[in-house]
Amino acid sequence: MKFFLQDLSRVRVGILGGGQLGWMMVLEGRKYPLKFYVMDSPEAPACKVADRCFKPDEYKEMIDSVDVVTFEFEHVYEEALRYAYEKDKLLPTIESVELKRQRWKERVFYKEHGIPTPRFFIAHDVEEVYRIAKNEFDYKCVIKQSTGGYDGKGQFFIKSKNDLDSSIDVIKKISDVFVVEEFVEFDYEASIIAIRTFDGVFKTYPPTYNRNEKGILVYNYGPISNTYISMKMVEIAKRLADSLNYVGVMGIEFFVRGDEVLVNEFAPRVHNTGHYTLDAAFTSQFENHVRALLGLEIGETKLLSCGGMVNILGLANPPLEVLKYGKLYWYGKNEARKRRKMGHVNIVGETLEEVKNKIDKVMELLYPNGLDL
Amino acid sequence: MKFFLQDLSRVRVGILGGGQLGWMMVLEGRKYPLKFYVMDSPEAPACKVADRCFKPDEYKEMIDSVDVVTFEFEHVYEEALRYAYEKDKLLPTIESVELKRQRWKERVFYKEHGIPTPRFFIAHDVEEVYRIAKNEFDYKCVIKQSTGGYDGKGQFFIKSKNDLDSSIDVIKKISDVFVVEEFVEFDYEASIIAIRTFDGVFKTYPPTYNRNEKGILVYNYGPISNTYISMKMVEIAKRLADSLNYVGVMGIEFFVRGDEVLVNEFAPRVHNTGHYTLDAAFTSQFENHVRALLGLEIGETKLLSCGGMVNILGLANPPLEVLKYGKLYWYGKNEARKRRKMGHVNIVGETLEEVKNKIDKVMELLYPNGLDL
Repeated sequence: MKFFLQDLSRVRVGILGGGQLGWMMVLEGRKYPLKFYVMDSPEAPACKVADRCFKPDEYKEMIDSVDVVTFEFEHVYEEALRYAYEKDKLLPTIESVELKRQRWKERVFYKEHGIPTPRFFIAHDVEEVYRIAKNEFDYKCVIKQSTGGYDGKGQFFIKSKNDLDSSIDVIKKISDVFVVEEFVEFDYEASIIAIRTFDGVFKTYPPTYNRNEKGILVYNYGPISNTYISMKMVEIAKRLADSLNYVGVMGIEFFVRGDEVLVNEFAPRVHNTGHYTLDAAFTSQFENHVRALLGLEIGETKLLSCGGMVNILGLANPPLEVLKYGKLYWYGKNEARKRRKMGHVNIVGETLEEVKNKIDKVMELLYPNGLDL
Repeated sequence: MKFFLQDLSRVRVGILGGGQLGWMMVLEGRKYPLKFYVMDSPEAPACKVADRCFKPDEYKEMIDSVDVVTFEFEHVYEEALRYAYEKDKLLPTIESVELKRQRWKERVFYKEHGIPTPRFFIAHDVEEVYRIAKNEFDYKCVIKQSTGGYDGKGQFFIKSKNDLDSSIDVIKKISDVFVVEEFVEFDYEASIIAIRTFDGVFKTYPPTYNRNEKGILVYNYGPISNTYISMKMVEIAKRLADSLNYVGVMGIEFFVRGDEVLVNEFAPRVHNTGHYTLDAAFTSQFENHVRALLGLEIGETKLLSCGGMVNILGLANPPLEVLKYGKLYWYGKNEARKRRKMGHVNIVGETLEEVKNKIDKVMELLYPNGLDL
């Protein structure tokens, strides 16, 4: 099929969720003659730059009035996602969302599709959690609530019998299935941003090293320098995207331990570890996601330079001296709360070393007294 | 002075003119918590993405309600520019605008400041035009109307007595001063995008090769590979910017003939030949212009790769196949008219050769029957 620009000028893209991911999707998509309708409260970042903003209870009206529906957050809007799926407008497909709704399903999916992931067991009650932690992992494990887990929520890191005993009372109060998995003593965490089109064209950006603290991304940079590891990640990403018949951008997080690459989790959307593509790559993850939704040619994903990103967490008023080292993206959220992602600084450099040095400088400027997470 | 982000959130930037240059200024400035007020008709590209749009006759209200006023076009809005200057809000400064209002003043300024420019004479009437063309240039010259000249308007290219005789009737009807200058048989045309801050910090992007036709830019690419020529351009740009005590981004167009670099003209604003900086450089000319206006640190101007741009001229419905080779920027103008800049395609490549090949592909896709200008 041959596309012309006029075809785009009739297209309305709906985005469920108006946070920073939706905001960057709209800003990057503004180059095209598209309309962006966003569902969230009017003061949400993406609503402020959208062509129309719909409140969450207006989801039917929103979905009925757009041509394609995507989302920037898979853990909420269950009814809206379902409705968009029923109207045959949802991208990426509902399968990937459903895997994310139940962590145990995600893990089982990996196992069934030969995707390496930490050793895990599913526990249906607190007694089973306890038994698995003791018998299978000798009290060294991670206990994860199956639903609603993101940014470190609903996760318990257990290193000893004491840890387990002191966590068990909280766990008892949670009515959910749990995944109990090995505590991976990784060399480093990494991620890859992948894109797949309707026609099965598959591309990735180069993987990055990620620094998480308390379950939240602090900074990342890339490309990672180990080609063997990189290729493993690309292979895994392709297997996952193909298995899901995926359309759009996804982010996949890994633990790397020696030559071993284990999938921690994936996100069926643009991803925080892909923000660096706004500046270090020719085409950003946001533009490529929009292109994929519309069936357009995917833009180049190779990096023009080494790159990285530092999240601005919980700060209302960062010093603009960071502009010495990078580009600022400020999401315009109403209120700075602890751990809240308020903005980020993108960085480029000729070498990874240069990028890392700039990251250190930006970290010092943003968090002179250390991170408070 | 130490800046914090909260300082920006109170700043309103006024832009006179709502065309594509203003549009990209707003889109690039949206990363910061700034408000953008644009003066133009409501359907102008930049008005559609502005926080507020003012009609041209509301210029006083607009200028009174912003902290700094810049412009995307120096040939109109004389009263508004003057009012902004009187209110001490205009950047770049009024001096550079005034040079552009009278081409002869621009040429004289170059001469006075040792900036190389084509040999020229000023003619006050049609007889003087004729005499200079004959006696000084043996009928090989360019006759330029002093006011209102841009995109090739008000220019007459004379190669013979016949040319002159057939143009003279049109010239007679123009009530203006004329600049009669040598017809430069250049090897190529080039330009540089420069930035200067309040503190006199001066940076440039690498110069590019430009392809103009009938006075309008068709495509450009860079960096130009002759270091000696590049350095001459940087030196000239610095002299010009310093002489004007300039603040913001400017574009300077050159003729290159052997080792000689002659200034054709400058534009006291972001420039069409700097659109490639959106993708080939870390910080775009648009973001750096906004940063300079606000007294912020200037971002890196070195290129991350070779880059280029193709203008989409007069087309309402270009084929989206161009996305195979580059990124599309579509300005969303209401109507496609001959010679009108409707959008552009940005291109990157590891080598100039790769960029040029992609430009050729894009040109073929956009103008399969050749350019109609």
